[in-house]
Amino acid sequence: MIIVLKDNPEIDKINALRDWLRSMDLEIHYSQGSSTTLMGLLGDTSGLDIDIIRSLPFVKKAIRIQEPYKLSHIGFKKEKTVVDVGGVKIGDGITKIIAGPCSVESNEQLIAIAESIKTSGGDVVRGGAYKPRTSPYTFQGTREEGMMILQKMKEQCKMPVVTEIMDIAHLEQFEHIDMIQVGARNMQNYELLRALGRQNKPVLLKRGFASTLEELLLSAEYILKEGNPNVILCERGIRTAANQGTITLDLSAVPRLKQMTHLPVIVDPSHGTGDSKIVTSMTLAAVACGADGVMVEVHNNPSMALCDGPQAIDLEEFEQLVKKIKQLRDIISV
Amino acid sequence: MIIVLKDNPEIDKINALRDWLRSMDLEIHYSQGSSTTLMGLLGDTSGLDIDIIRSLPFVKKAIRIQEPYKLSHIGFKKEKTVVDVGGVKIGDGITKIIAGPCSVESNEQLIAIAESIKTSGGDVVRGGAYKPRTSPYTFQGTREEGMMILQKMKEQCKMPVVTEIMDIAHLEQFEHIDMIQVGARNMQNYELLRALGRQNKPVLLKRGFASTLEELLLSAEYILKEGNPNVILCERGIRTAANQGTITLDLSAVPRLKQMTHLPVIVDPSHGTGDSKIVTSMTLAAVACGADGVMVEVHNNPSMALCDGPQAIDLEEFEQLVKKIKQLRDIISV
Amino acid sequence: MIIVLKDNPEIDKINALRDWLRSMDLEIHYSQGSSTTLMGLLGDTSGLDIDIIRSLPFVKKAIRIQEPYKLSHIGFKKEKTVVDVGGVKIGDGITKIIAGPCSVESNEQLIAIAESIKTSGGDVVRGGAYKPRTSPYTFQGTREEGMMILQKMKEQCKMPVVTEIMDIAHLEQFEHIDMIQVGARNMQNYELLRALGRQNKPVLLKRGFASTLEELLLSAEYILKEGNPNVILCERGIRTAANQGTITLDLSAVPRLKQMTHLPVIVDPSHGTGDSKIVTSMTLAAVACGADGVMVEVHNNPSMALCDGPQAIDLEEFEQLVKKIKQLRDIISV
Amino acid sequence: MIIVLKDNPEIDKINALRDWLRSMDLEIHYSQGSSTTLMGLLGDTSGLDIDIIRSLPFVKKAIRIQEPYKLSHIGFKKEKTVVDVGGVKIGDGITKIIAGPCSVESNEQLIAIAESIKTSGGDVVRGGAYKPRTSPYTFQGTREEGMMILQKMKEQCKMPVVTEIMDIAHLEQFEHIDMIQVGARNMQNYELLRALGRQNKPVLLKRGFASTLEELLLSAEYILKEGNPNVILCERGIRTAANQGTITLDLSAVPRLKQMTHLPVIVDPSHGTGDSKIVTSMTLAAVACGADGVMVEVHNNPSMALCDGPQAIDLEEFEQLVKKIKQLRDIISV
Repeated sequence: MIIVLKDNPEIDKINALRDWLRSMDLEIHYSQGSSTTLMGLLGDTSGLDIDIIRSLPFVKKAIRIQEPYKLSHIGFKKEKTVVDVGGVKIGDGITKIIAGPCSVESNEQLIAIAESIKTSGGDVVRGGAYKPRTSPYTFQGTREEGMMILQKMKEQCKMPVVTEIMDIAHLEQFEHIDMIQVGARNMQNYELLRALGRQNKPVLLKRGFASTLEELLLSAEYILKEGNPNVILCERGIRTAANQGTITLDLSAVPRLKQMTHLPVIVDPSHGTGDSKIVTSMTLAAVACGADGVMVEVHNNPSMALCDGPQAIDLEEFEQLVKKIKQLRDIISV
Repeated sequence: MIIVLKDNPEIDKINALRDWLRSMDLEIHYSQGSSTTLMGLLGDTSGLDIDIIRSLPFVKKAIRIQEPYKLSHIGFKKEKTVVDVGGVKIGDGITKIIAGPCSVESNEQLIAIAESIKTSGGDVVRGGAYKPRTSPYTFQGTREEGMMILQKMKEQCKMPVVTEIMDIAHLEQFEHIDMIQVGARNMQNYELLRALGRQNKPVLLKRGFASTLEELLLSAEYILKEGNPNVILCERGIRTAANQGTITLDLSAVPRLKQMTHLPVIVDPSHGTGDSKIVTSMTLAAVACGADGVMVEVHNNPSMALCDGPQAIDLEEFEQLVKKIKQLRDIISV
Repeated sequence: MIIVLKDNPEIDKINALRDWLRSMDLEIHYSQGSSTTLMGLLGDTSGLDIDIIRSLPFVKKAIRIQEPYKLSHIGFKKEKTVVDVGGVKIGDGITKIIAGPCSVESNEQLIAIAESIKTSGGDVVRGGAYKPRTSPYTFQGTREEGMMILQKMKEQCKMPVVTEIMDIAHLEQFEHIDMIQVGARNMQNYELLRALGRQNKPVLLKRGFASTLEELLLSAEYILKEGNPNVILCERGIRTAANQGTITLDLSAVPRLKQMTHLPVIVDPSHGTGDSKIVTSMTLAAVACGADGVMVEVHNNPSMALCDGPQAIDLEEFEQLVKKIKQLRDIISV
Repeated sequence: MIIVLKDNPEIDKINALRDWLRSMDLEIHYSQGSSTTLMGLLGDTSGLDIDIIRSLPFVKKAIRIQEPYKLSHIGFKKEKTVVDVGGVKIGDGITKIIAGPCSVESNEQLIAIAESIKTSGGDVVRGGAYKPRTSPYTFQGTREEGMMILQKMKEQCKMPVVTEIMDIAHLEQFEHIDMIQVGARNMQNYELLRALGRQNKPVLLKRGFASTLEELLLSAEYILKEGNPNVILCERGIRTAANQGTITLDLSAVPRLKQMTHLPVIVDPSHGTGDSKIVTSMTLAAVACGADGVMVEVHNNPSMALCDGPQAIDLEEFEQLVKKIKQLRDIISV
C-alpha cells in the first residue's frame, strides 16, 4: 500500500500512524519529494482497512498495490483449479454444460428433462428446490420435497446435480447434492459462506447484482479461508442503468476474472439475460470468450410453458445449442 | 394486471392462459381493439409472476396496475406506522436522531460516546458488534463481547440501542436490543427476514446497494407477512456508475417511499456518503426532505481516529449537528 | 398507449384529456372495470409525450404499446438494411472487420497499419483525426491534418475508411470519407444528427455510456427522418456500478437490437473493454452472438506503444484474430 | 503521478519510458523497495494520458496524485467564484432561485409566470426555446420564436433569463440572454464548450446522466481554458440501476463539488426528480446541503397542465416553496 500525505502534515500524527502500522508487522518506507511525502507499506496489508487510512485528515490518497484477496489470487498456485462435480471436471480446459429446469416440480418432469439433457450432451443437471423470490407472495419452490426429487433423479439418471442453498440450517439436506449454489442475493451472506467453507462439497458462487469482481473474489475468499478449495465463480448478469427493466450479462467478467484468479469461471446466460430468445446467442458468446462452463435453463413444455421461467429454452433448442457449443470448443481454447 | 396480446394470437393458447388464470381465482376482462387485444385481470394478482406472463410467445406486454406489495402499501391502513424503539417513537412526525460508533470496542468507549450523544440530544444509540466485512481479513467486529457491552451501556445510560444481525442463529443474543438491524447485504436474505417476522422487536431494514424501492418494500413484506408490523426502512446509499469509488445517497427515496408506504423512513448519511466531511450537509438535507430519523456514526477520538470509520464525525461536530437539526425541525413538517 | 386512471377521477378533467387527445387525431377506447378505468389510444402515438400523461393527477399509469421509433423499427421494412461502406456491405450476413489505429499520426504510420490490415483480411480502416477527449489538456487529435492523411491512405491502399465527426462545421472535410462516425458523447447531439440525416454518407452511430437501446434507436431516427437510410448502430460499452474504473461491453445489445430494428449492429470491443488483453476474447464473443461487424484498434509499435491506446492490439495479434473470426463465421449465422 | 512497476521489468523499456516522460518536462523520482519499484513524476502531469501509462506491459498501476483539472480546482484561487447573471450574484453565499416554465410557448404565458415568480421572490427566469428531445417526433420547442419571447419578457419584467443552447450556429440568438445553459446531453460536446469559452456570458453547465464529478469539472475546464471564467455547475440527476424508470438526484454532488472547486454549484430538482410531487422536498434538501442556487420548473395552469412537464409545480406551490427556502437560508450557511 502507498500512502500519499498532504502537504505539511503534523509530525506527531504521522508518528502515531507509523507506530500503529508497525504494530501490525508492516515495514514503512518513506519517500520525500519536494512537495509530496509518500509512505510505502511492506508486508501483508490485506488486513488493513484502506478506508480508515483514507479518512485520516493528513492523508491525501491511499492506494493498494497488493490485491486484497490471497487464496483465490492467480499467483497463489501454479495451476488453474479444476473442480470435480460428481465426476465432471470444471476448469479442465473444456467448456462444460449445466442445464435443467428453473424449478423442480415433480419426479416425472425432472427425469424427463434430465434424460433429454443427458442425451443431448449436457454434463450436470441444475434445478431449484429452494427459490429466493423477490416477493413473498410468489412461488417459493418445492423446498424439502424438491430436494428429494433431485436425489431420485440423480440415482436414476446418473447425472451430477447442483441446487441452491438459502440458509445454513438446510445444509444437511444437501448430502446427496454434488455442488451447492450460493445465489446472487447471498453472495455477501458471510455466515453462510463461512459454513460452506467448513465442508467439502464444491460451491458455485454467483456474482451479486452490483458486485465488483474484487468483491466476488473476496466472497470466495471467505469459503477458501475455512478450508474448502472447491469454488466455482459464476457471472449471471449485473443491474445497469442503461438496460432498464432487464439484467445485463457482463461477459467481460470471464476474461477479466481469468487474469485475476485460478478458480474456474462459468456463465449463466438464462438468468443473465432473462429472455429465452437471446439465450442461445449469449451462451455461444460465453463459450467464445473462454467460460469454463455454461448453465442454461431448459423446460419440457413447449406448448404452454406457464410454470417455467421466461428465460428457459426448450429441449430441442437445447440440443441444437449443444451442437454449436461443441463446434465452438474446437476453435476456442479456454 | 393488463396483458397486451400480440396480433393474431392462437386461440387455443389464449384459452389455456385464461383457464390457468381463472384457476388462480382471477377474473378476466377482454378488450378487443382493431389491432390489439387486451386482457385485464381482476382480483389479487400479487402471487402472479409477471415475468412468466411476459415470456409467453403470444404476449406483447404485461403491466402491473396493482403494486405487488400489500401490507406495507400506503393504502393498507389509514395512519402512518409509528414504531416504538425502547420508548422513542419513530414515525411520529418529529425526526429522531440515532448515533453511535461504527464498532463497539469497549465499555469505556461506548459509554463515553453514549453519554455524550444523550447530552447532545440524540435519541437512540447505534453500534456494531457483528460487522459484515467485504474481506475476511479485516476486523469482523467484537461479536458476542460487543453484544454484552451494548447491554451494559443500555443499563447504565438508559438509552435504547440498535445493532445489526448477520445470522438467525445469533437471534437470542438480541434479547436486550431494542431494534434489530438488517444490513444492505442481507436485504434479500429471505430466511433471515422470515425469522425476524416471527418475533416482535422492531426491525431496521436497510436498502441494498442496487435495490429498487419496490424490492425494499417486498423485503419488508417478508417481515410483515409473518406478523411483525414494526419495520423501519433505511436509505443508506446506492452504488452508481456516475460516482465511482464511493456510494451515492439517494435522498429522493425518502419522499418517494412516503408516497408508497405507511412505514417510517430513516436515512444513514454516514454509510450513505462514506465521507465524514459531507455527513453534516447530507444529514441536514435528509431532515429537510422529510426523513423520520437520521442515523449518524460518531467517534470520540478526534486526534487519531484510526479505529473509527472514515465516515464518523466527532462528538463536537455531532453536538452542532443536533442543534441545526432541531432548528430545521421547526421549519420542515415530516 | 394505455392510460390507467385513478379511482373516481373527476369527469371534467377526463373530458379535457379526451378532447386534447382527439385533437391529436387519436381514437379513444374506454374500458370500465369494477374499480379501474382504462383509456386505450388508437392511432400514431409516437408524438405523444408519455411523461406528460403520467404527470396528470388523475392518471395512475400510462403504458406505451407501440414503440416510439418508427423508421428504424424491425417491422418498418421486410428486409434487413445492408449499408454499403465504400463497397463493403455491412449487414449482409457476414461479419465485417473494421480496424485501425486510435489516432492518425502520420502517412507512414497509417499506411503501414492499413496495408497490414488489408493483408490480414480486414475490410475497412478506422482512424481518429478529431478526438473527443475528457480533458482539454490531453492530445486532441491531428484534426485537419489527420483528415488529409486518411484521404491519402484511402487512395494508396484502396481501403474504405471511417472516422469521427465532432461538429457540423467540419462536415465538408468528410468528402472523401466512406462512413462518418458519431461518438458516444454526441449520440444525443440532435443538431448534428439532423445534419447527418440531410446528407447520404453512411453514419456509424455509437451508443452513449448510459443510453438505453430505445434511446439509441430514437437517435438513429433523427438521421433516418431527414432522409438518410444508411445508419449502422455500434455497441461500445456502457458505464456500470459493478465495474468501477472501467467500461462494460454489453454484448446482449446485439441480439436485443436485432429483435428491435432492421439496421446493422456492430461492436467495438476495444473502447468497449479498454484493455488490450481481453480484446481478442470479447471480439470473438461479439461474432458468436451475431454482430454484423467488429471494430478493433490496432497499433504497429509492439515494443513501446506509448502513443497508442491501452486498448490496441498489435498487428500480429490482429492477424490471429482475423483467422479465428473467419472460423467462427462458418459456425455462426448472423 | 505515481507509477508502480511490475516485478523484474526490462531495463531498456523503463529507460524508454523515462526518456519519453522527461521529453514532457517531467522530473522522475525513483523509489526501489525489496519487491516493488515506484516512479514518482514531478511537474505538470495534466497532459499525460494515464490510460496509456497503465497499458504498458511492465506497469502494474498508475495513480494520479494531482487532479487533472486546474482552472476550476479549489486551490486555483483564494476566493470562491461569484457569477453575475444580469445583476444576480450566484455564489455569494445566499441561495438563489431560478424558476420558469419547461417550454416558452407565448408572450402571455411567459409574462404571467415571470411576474408571479418575481412577486414570489424568484431571482432569475428560466424557459426552454430549443428543446433537446429524445424522440424526433415530440415537440422540439418554439426555437427562434421562443428566443424572441424570452427577450420581450426580459424587457418587460426586468428579470434576468437563462435558456439552453443546442448548437454553436445559434449563438448569435443568445445576445439578450443573461446565462447560456448547456444541457446534460451536451456536457461533452467539446466544440460547443470551446465556443462558449470564447465569449463572456455566464454558462450554466449541467452534469451528464452518467458523468463523474471529475468529468464535469474537466468539461468546465474546456470553457475556462478559452478565457471565460463565468461557469456555474448544475446537478440535475443521474441515471442509476436502483431507480429504474426515473432519474436520481445526487445531492451529495453539492458538498463534494464544493471541496473540489471554487465554481458555484446549483441544483435542478425538477429534471432531477421528474416528479412534481417530490420537487418541493428535494428543493429544500438542496438548500439544506449548501447549493448556491436552485432551478425549478413552474407552470401557470393548475387545472389541466397538459403542456407543462410532469415535473413542474404550480405558482402557488412555488410561492410556498420560496417562503420555506428563505427560512432555511437563515439556518444554513452556503
